[in-house]
Amino acid sequence: MNQQETLTHARILIACPDQPGVVSAVAGALYGLGANITESAQHTTDPSGGAFFMRIACYIPASRDLEAQLFDVFQPLVNRFAIHYELSLGQRRQRMAIFVSREDHCLVELLWQRQSGGLNADIAMVISNHETQRATVEQFGIPFHYTPVTPDSKDAAENLQLQLLDGSADFLVLARYMQVLSPRMIAAFPNRIINIHHSFLPAFSGAKPYERAYTRGVKIIGATAHYVTEELDAGPIIEQDVLRINHGYTAADMKRVGRQVERTVLARAVQWHTEDRILVHANKTIVFL
Amino acid sequence: MNQQETLTHARILIACPDQPGVVSAVAGALYGLGANITESAQHTTDPSGGAFFMRIACYIPASRDLEAQLFDVFQPLVNRFAIHYELSLGQRRQRMAIFVSREDHCLVELLWQRQSGGLNADIAMVISNHETQRATVEQFGIPFHYTPVTPDSKDAAENLQLQLLDGSADFLVLARYMQVLSPRMIAAFPNRIINIHHSFLPAFSGAKPYERAYTRGVKIIGATAHYVTEELDAGPIIEQDVLRINHGYTAADMKRVGRQVERTVLARAVQWHTEDRILVHANKTIVFL
Amino acid sequence: MNQQETLTHARILIACPDQPGVVSAVAGALYGLGANITESAQHTTDPSGGAFFMRIACYIPASRDLEAQLFDVFQPLVNRFAIHYELSLGQRRQRMAIFVSREDHCLVELLWQRQSGGLNADIAMVISNHETQRATVEQFGIPFHYTPVTPDSKDAAENLQLQLLDGSADFLVLARYMQVLSPRMIAAFPNRIINIHHSFLPAFSGAKPYERAYTRGVKIIGATAHYVTEELDAGPIIEQDVLRINHGYTAADMKRVGRQVERTVLARAVQWHTEDRILVHANKTIVFL
Amino acid sequence: MNQQETLTHARILIACPDQPGVVSAVAGALYGLGANITESAQHTTDPSGGAFFMRIACYIPASRDLEAQLFDVFQPLVNRFAIHYELSLGQRRQRMAIFVSREDHCLVELLWQRQSGGLNADIAMVISNHETQRATVEQFGIPFHYTPVTPDSKDAAENLQLQLLDGSADFLVLARYMQVLSPRMIAAFPNRIINIHHSFLPAFSGAKPYERAYTRGVKIIGATAHYVTEELDAGPIIEQDVLRINHGYTAADMKRVGRQVERTVLARAVQWHTEDRILVHANKTIVFL
Repeated sequence: MNQQETLTHARILIACPDQPGVVSAVAGALYGLGANITESAQHTTDPSGGAFFMRIACYIPASRDLEAQLFDVFQPLVNRFAIHYELSLGQRRQRMAIFVSREDHCLVELLWQRQSGGLNADIAMVISNHETQRATVEQFGIPFHYTPVTPDSKDAAENLQLQLLDGSADFLVLARYMQVLSPRMIAAFPNRIINIHHSFLPAFSGAKPYERAYTRGVKIIGATAHYVTEELDAGPIIEQDVLRINHGYTAADMKRVGRQVERTVLARAVQWHTEDRILVHANKTIVFL
Repeated sequence: MNQQETLTHARILIACPDQPGVVSAVAGALYGLGANITESAQHTTDPSGGAFFMRIACYIPASRDLEAQLFDVFQPLVNRFAIHYELSLGQRRQRMAIFVSREDHCLVELLWQRQSGGLNADIAMVISNHETQRATVEQFGIPFHYTPVTPDSKDAAENLQLQLLDGSADFLVLARYMQVLSPRMIAAFPNRIINIHHSFLPAFSGAKPYERAYTRGVKIIGATAHYVTEELDAGPIIEQDVLRINHGYTAADMKRVGRQVERTVLARAVQWHTEDRILVHANKTIVFL
Repeated sequence: MNQQETLTHARILIACPDQPGVVSAVAGALYGLGANITESAQHTTDPSGGAFFMRIACYIPASRDLEAQLFDVFQPLVNRFAIHYELSLGQRRQRMAIFVSREDHCLVELLWQRQSGGLNADIAMVISNHETQRATVEQFGIPFHYTPVTPDSKDAAENLQLQLLDGSADFLVLARYMQVLSPRMIAAFPNRIINIHHSFLPAFSGAKPYERAYTRGVKIIGATAHYVTEELDAGPIIEQDVLRINHGYTAADMKRVGRQVERTVLARAVQWHTEDRILVHANKTIVFL
Repeated sequence: MNQQETLTHARILIACPDQPGVVSAVAGALYGLGANITESAQHTTDPSGGAFFMRIACYIPASRDLEAQLFDVFQPLVNRFAIHYELSLGQRRQRMAIFVSREDHCLVELLWQRQSGGLNADIAMVISNHETQRATVEQFGIPFHYTPVTPDSKDAAENLQLQLLDGSADFLVLARYMQVLSPRMIAAFPNRIINIHHSFLPAFSGAKPYERAYTRGVKIIGATAHYVTEELDAGPIIEQDVLRINHGYTAADMKRVGRQVERTVLARAVQWHTEDRILVHANKTIVFL
């Protein structure tokens, strides 16, 4: 490789029916462009007749027409293997919009990770149905939009939200947002809305999970980050984690210690999303770590 | 304390309405008998008007009429504080009967822990609706009883089982026994039947939990040990543990790695039960560790 | 108990040689004052000839001379059992001083837990050998003191620090403070300085633990909160936690993900310290949870 | 692919200097032989000038001269990229020899996993410096060899062991074998001797780790599986896991609960070894899961 060349970072996500030759063809195509593959991971749902998924990260010689070059080498693969592919080139950072209600722990985690450089994305705005977190958000220099929601105003609020988001956000993060999104909003960001649910799904989906965990007497509680679909708390699970408790924990205690797990799980899911590590298939995620 | 005195080990479990003075009275009563308390744990469900639970382990001077002495000091507390208490004196080991179907991992864990001295109980017998595990059980010198169960023979099988158990077993362990026990059997061993369920309850109660975990796409699987009640998989949870998986795990993979968690969780629950560490209240357990 | 009485919260820590009668005597003394015990935990290092430790939390009728009353009932126990005891009455919050260098993750964790009500203590001040974190600290309305340390100025810096702390702080938290404290400072706060070390002690004590963990090729990294003693990283361990990594992690990756564990472990240790849950014996901690 | 063709399973491990084109060339070579890649993982120690490692599992049309065919397509890659490769074809199972002293928990874990079909290897023999485990081993129908070791007989014992192993074992597992192997034995099985150490290395390497963990007052204990090298407990770490304890655990308690972790960690390491998932580089392991 010419040492004078500038290299750019590229990530490619691929999905297609499982069949011999795909890895060879993709690796060959990238090699033809001078790419050095640094990460490569693949998954087959079933060795005979299944679906095939692949993620490649590489350094590739930068050039003004790199996208066109990539199109030229990948288009034949589309025809030959019926692959779908997504490219992410260079250092472009994704922009997220955070939705929050009153509780601040997930919001603050993302704000601080962003500020400390731990998060590979920009926070375009925070949208809330309460004014509670305005000061916290604005102290980080991030726009805060108050869109109150009542049964009557729900439609209008969503209109406003969609207007704010239009062209400004690549994906949404529901950081303990206590409103159910409408199908219209979900359709606007398919597999691009990450929610944190404060239970180990599918246990305790819906309202008041800690109270119900307390009543059932579980010995471990958890949190789940998932993509939002129309069915409540039933979308593809991205990440889960748990915490051991015992009979001495009240529901309030669980809520308090559970915050720690919620924010960790959400931050991990957001990070993976921004690094193009997640593919969705059959209401499940493939997460290439 | 007279150094010539022989000491015996005693464990006392206490339950009563929460009220001032109980700890003082119980500790005073035991001190009056010359006891040295080595473990003491307590739990209050609610500081005002709740239920109070306590476990004490101590060494106490042995004597032929120790049970009578304990009765004499505890009876006044029954009257004064409405306490219920259970005593476990000396080195008497509880006797368990293990129920198993075809899978051996939980059974073998208990057999080996018993053989290696890690389990504080005796295994009186193994009962199975299949002949599969006879050789394994008999190689440990433990009686194996085959009680086949068909829709027609279920009643007769349970009659036989109850006959075998009568006077021979203090508690039952369902070590992957794939039959639902009748209310009659459950009533014969109230809060004395420990089941291992191969999911993180309340998620995936009922049949085929690993298959359903696979379909849902969870990122963590688990196992739950609980006391059996009439409602399937809904009894008081004793212990749970989990294992991280990822998109690469088939249902068969989960089944394989899940065995490790199932047997660990079951062995812990059995151990705690034999050490009188578990109290049941409001369909939940208090586990004093 | 008279319903008109106001109750105050009390915590008592007790240490003495193990001997029969202590639990009974302590519980009796508190009962005599009308206390309702809500938490009680004890530990014996050895049932014959060991040391005995106990923590009691209770509600007790408030009165102007409660301390004198407690003195009256506990003094006989001092004589009889050679107990040492510490009392913590009412809602008085302990005051901590945080020491920090450049890295903010542990500092911010404590600042936010304090702000969100999750921390049972006040932050009196932050002291740093760098100006880096001034803005962050002052945005929470907490005094920030810059005490630069060079080989020549170390003594003067500590003089200044001791002056700032005098009468203002009950305990110190080293939230990634990259200076070794002098014996004089340590003596001023015996068992009252909590440090977070970024490894799973005793592995990788001293400098650059992540780099050394990387070189050794460990599969799990961790963090340790401990009380500071004169021997570096060798004081009584309060809490540890770990995180699974793999061959793909660089030392920089470990540093990044390790922050999550460091801040969680430190926050837990600080919380327990403020709730009088920790006793030190033989360079080890007894933590009553 | 001709449906009449029989497929055989193949695993390929590759190591070479990192450089563009390797993935493409390897995938192309396998595609040329009609292989369908089911697992593929790679690791680069450093994107510029580092070492590159890859593991591929695939199904490949069986033929009498498959090894020759593979040689033909891989030899050019050896010349072009300086790759080293190892092939594992078909269903050939590796044969292990287990070394054990008196404690049975790790030995029994492997024996039972083998019997239950959970272990992808055969147990050729068990070698011990004590007779203690003979009955346990022979009840599984596996040869047991007693090779007593005294300071004087150490050489003779190893001669006998090497003779027993010669041609009969592919790798060794030290399942709590309390003798240090000589350099001669280690050289006979380079990176093919797996030891389980009962601590979280590098903490507490050497003798009596639980006793030292007790004295240090750690809050978490662990176990480490590693390849044996001449320096004691300093070889490449394969796997580690941990267990939370507290001040109530004696060294004997740690020993008892630690067994659970030791056997799990060892069984995982053995399983990965038999599946060709482990590469050694710079005294560290790359484990492709």
